[in-house]
Amino acid sequence: MERLLPRIQSPGDVRALPESELPRLCEELREDIISLCGRVGGHLGASLGAVELIVSLHRVFHSPQDALVFDVGHQAYAHKLLTGRRERMGTLRQAGGISPFLDPRESHHDALAAGHASTAVSAALGMLQGKKLRGQPGHAVAVVGDGALTGGLTFEGLNNTGGTHLPLVVVLNDNQMSISANVGAIPALLRTREARAFFEGLGFTYLGPVDGHDLGALTRALREARASTRPVVVHAMTQKGRGFPPAEADTQTRGHAMGPYEWRDGKLVRSRGGQRTFSEAFASALEEVMARDERVVAVTPAMLEGSALVGLKQRYPERVFDVGIAEQHAVTFCAGLAVTGLRPVCAIYSTFLQRAYDQVIHDVCLPGLPVVFAVDRAGLVGADGATHQGTYDVASLRPIPGLTMMAPVTGEDVTAMLATALALPGPSLMRFPRGTLPTLPPEPQPGTGPVSGARWLKRAAQARVTFITLGPLGVSALEAAASEPGWSVLDARFVTPLDEAAVLEAAACGRVVVAEEGTTHGGLGSAVLELLAARGVGARVKLLGMPDTFVPHGDARVQRAELGLDAAGLRRAVQALLAEGDAP
Amino acid sequence: MERLLPRIQSPGDVRALPESELPRLCEELREDIISLCGRVGGHLGASLGAVELIVSLHRVFHSPQDALVFDVGHQAYAHKLLTGRRERMGTLRQAGGISPFLDPRESHHDALAAGHASTAVSAALGMLQGKKLRGQPGHAVAVVGDGALTGGLTFEGLNNTGGTHLPLVVVLNDNQMSISANVGAIPALLRTREARAFFEGLGFTYLGPVDGHDLGALTRALREARASTRPVVVHAMTQKGRGFPPAEADTQTRGHAMGPYEWRDGKLVRSRGGQRTFSEAFASALEEVMARDERVVAVTPAMLEGSALVGLKQRYPERVFDVGIAEQHAVTFCAGLAVTGLRPVCAIYSTFLQRAYDQVIHDVCLPGLPVVFAVDRAGLVGADGATHQGTYDVASLRPIPGLTMMAPVTGEDVTAMLATALALPGPSLMRFPRGTLPTLPPEPQPGTGPVSGARWLKRAAQARVTFITLGPLGVSALEAAASEPGWSVLDARFVTPLDEAAVLEAAACGRVVVAEEGTTHGGLGSAVLELLAARGVGARVKLLGMPDTFVPHGDARVQRAELGLDAAGLRRAVQALLAEGDAP
Repeated sequence: MERLLPRIQSPGDVRALPESELPRLCEELREDIISLCGRVGGHLGASLGAVELIVSLHRVFHSPQDALVFDVGHQAYAHKLLTGRRERMGTLRQAGGISPFLDPRESHHDALAAGHASTAVSAALGMLQGKKLRGQPGHAVAVVGDGALTGGLTFEGLNNTGGTHLPLVVVLNDNQMSISANVGAIPALLRTREARAFFEGLGFTYLGPVDGHDLGALTRALREARASTRPVVVHAMTQKGRGFPPAEADTQTRGHAMGPYEWRDGKLVRSRGGQRTFSEAFASALEEVMARDERVVAVTPAMLEGSALVGLKQRYPERVFDVGIAEQHAVTFCAGLAVTGLRPVCAIYSTFLQRAYDQVIHDVCLPGLPVVFAVDRAGLVGADGATHQGTYDVASLRPIPGLTMMAPVTGEDVTAMLATALALPGPSLMRFPRGTLPTLPPEPQPGTGPVSGARWLKRAAQARVTFITLGPLGVSALEAAASEPGWSVLDARFVTPLDEAAVLEAAACGRVVVAEEGTTHGGLGSAVLELLAARGVGARVKLLGMPDTFVPHGDARVQRAELGLDAAGLRRAVQALLAEGDAP
Repeated sequence: MERLLPRIQSPGDVRALPESELPRLCEELREDIISLCGRVGGHLGASLGAVELIVSLHRVFHSPQDALVFDVGHQAYAHKLLTGRRERMGTLRQAGGISPFLDPRESHHDALAAGHASTAVSAALGMLQGKKLRGQPGHAVAVVGDGALTGGLTFEGLNNTGGTHLPLVVVLNDNQMSISANVGAIPALLRTREARAFFEGLGFTYLGPVDGHDLGALTRALREARASTRPVVVHAMTQKGRGFPPAEADTQTRGHAMGPYEWRDGKLVRSRGGQRTFSEAFASALEEVMARDERVVAVTPAMLEGSALVGLKQRYPERVFDVGIAEQHAVTFCAGLAVTGLRPVCAIYSTFLQRAYDQVIHDVCLPGLPVVFAVDRAGLVGADGATHQGTYDVASLRPIPGLTMMAPVTGEDVTAMLATALALPGPSLMRFPRGTLPTLPPEPQPGTGPVSGARWLKRAAQARVTFITLGPLGVSALEAAASEPGWSVLDARFVTPLDEAAVLEAAACGRVVVAEEGTTHGGLGSAVLELLAARGVGARVKLLGMPDTFVPHGDARVQRAELGLDAAGLRRAVQALLAEGDAP
């Protein structure tokens, strides 16, 4: 039988199909999503769960006149497949290819760009309010997962919507799952009749619960929602991973986001590689200190898997807190824990720490509480793309008084820096990238006890130039300097407090290349420049880092090379500097 | 009759009073608060409304063993008066004096430092969880205003608390008011029986509503809450400004926070000064553009009064949106508005924009939407102190691609820069301080149309040194340079994009002093250093700005002088630079 999907170029084609063909369309969408994720990886579980929901949305609403705002967008592969992107879907998450989330620059059927959770209600309310003021036709629909419902931004949006009485349609795609299991009172609430009272209390008409895989029921509920003259929520119950047994069974780890896999003899086969990641080194180090020191506890906003803390949660269920998608709360909760003498370690991605910027300043650093931030995914993140790059942590947090900020090069450094952090009386932060641990030649390796100051990875007797690096870039700098007797390498280790004596010594040769995986506007490089200016030291200084643009999805290793953040790029930077002559 | 208050040195003394004396104690607390705010200004209304509540809390709970966590803390003057600070209360909000909010360094009865709303539930839950793990006795109580209830962080905390089943006591101090009138569905909800269903849905036992001025009823409800073995909310109805007729009647403006006043012939008399503020200049400029361009709309998170937008809201009720204490939503809502072709102007204080850091990056700048951020209270804020200083906006937002960032010197600049912002295709930000507008000598003033690049306020023929300034510091630099023929002054105007040609010209004399009211770690000064490094230009550069500590409350003019950010300080900086000799 000829497949339907190749004939679907836009939502209009979905609406034109006879109702009897919709089950087959859903089946084909599932086949494509499963095959696609097998080949290139991706957010399998959420997208499988939302197939009927997305088909129904495109039957009832008329995108783009009706704005369909998908929260995060990782559940919307079916939407991509139905909006003219099917043939390019094989390039998903790859450089120049289809975005891992949604992007209005990719399709005018993507009403909003989003890779972070909980933005849809606020944005859709803005669109609806805007349509009203501008006299534009059309509805606005926010499709929100139950996980994103625990994020405070969603609640702010719901509260505000309820007050406006505007007919915003909120579709709650309830798969009873966040990235991890859901957290807090809301998930239980959604299982009871109280769900209706909750949403009605917020000023919404409540429709549901609806079987999110029943096309007829979904379509009826969405039509009713579309006709509403006031805020309305459609509560659709879906199953994460629906239609793919391994993803149904293992919704958290494999079902959420995964790399390419094979499906053989009824089992999933994944090539994982044997190398240890920074996340794993952090989790091991944390497990060690938790075994030694009962004051140490761990807090994560829905990143138990991502931060490699699943085993730790099993070992210490009372001392590891997954607070759900609620970054602000995660940080302020840590502040409260620290007040009682505990030593909370907040495991959070760089990009999500942006959500809690004020809480880091106001709730932790201002009172000087000893919270440790373990900032994962700092720097280039690869396939997750622009919304997830860890670019701004150093620049935004460096000016905060009293916050010690470190970056490890090796797994041993992770252990040493966690010990350092926990020995401090005030707040601290350790940033490390996504990916596997590099190894340093044995000599410059420290032990695993507390450290202070910078570390010379290579110290030339008569230096012509010095690299000052942050994190694993130290290894690239060592490689770049390997055959150059006059090139030194200083691993800064600490952004704050900056090891001023070491940096001044590094600059004494007159030429410095600072390399970091983060913005060069306010990062470690700027700290070096500020110090040299304060001391009246003249030197030629070249700053290397992430560019003045949002870096899209792609292979992080390729991107590093393109951005000049590999050994070859570091060499080129030095050669250019040497060609410029002496310090001005 | 002898007053009771002088005998109260700690909460134990409150508990020791016979019940019959409590009404008199409350009366004395009100007298003291009214007299105090008359002399030194302060958060009159909220503190008057919470008198009986605070007395009852100290009768039922035993601080500090029981942690009393007041949200924001501006309602807690009675708490200060009952915890040994009565004699020093006359120094409220003054340098070296009693803090405007709460601070554990000021009293061990202040469980948490906080000047931003919505943190109490998360912090108190952390404390309760910590007490449990540490085996420490005592309860934890979060006292939350209804205004702070609309902030997403409170919701994240409530949701998480409901899931833990820990016996956290949340006291909802419901005065039916935020800073402005409350916003959204929640305020209406709290007036109905649905309030019980809402909190029960979140996993709380609901007690109330209780008359928040009835000591007996309050005490009974709090005792019941204290005995609970699961999360419990006590809903207390209070009256903002209670007991002081002018504050009762005018709860929003005078009742919230105010300067010193006199109470004559039944009328409030305030000395206001005739000078126009930056906020007022912004509001006027906004009103003008809204009259001309119907695409322009304004959004504020509960700062209609603070941002001088009350008149604008009256004139354009449909185009001015107060979204309540919900900074994240304010920004993402603006993103949605912008998608429809509107030109939203988000009026927000620098310190509160920290709450929406991720939303600025992810929801506005990443898609490149033309939202204008009008950032008020950028720089020193004076009496509100450490929690409210506008220190980090430039450093944290400068690295964000595509965000244009400006700072006006004069009222004309405010108009010109708003026009500039609205003419841009992408996001922009204008930062201006709390306080009155300076005037520039006529010559260097621009018109009020769009501007670009930096502006020479004074250009010496043979410059020995150049000031590069941001915002009103340009006026101080002009004053510092007035009698010095060799001192130039460049008003940067734009932090991003930096006017590179002008900065290079400024540096050509070999000595630059960069002055800004913000952190020097990543601010305009760092931008100058980054440019000079990139171009290989050597110059002696001195950065002036806010220090590496949290700046406490005090008189902003005095603090400016102490920090070297007045004309005299700028002179001293140049003289020191000149004494150092030529560029290295």
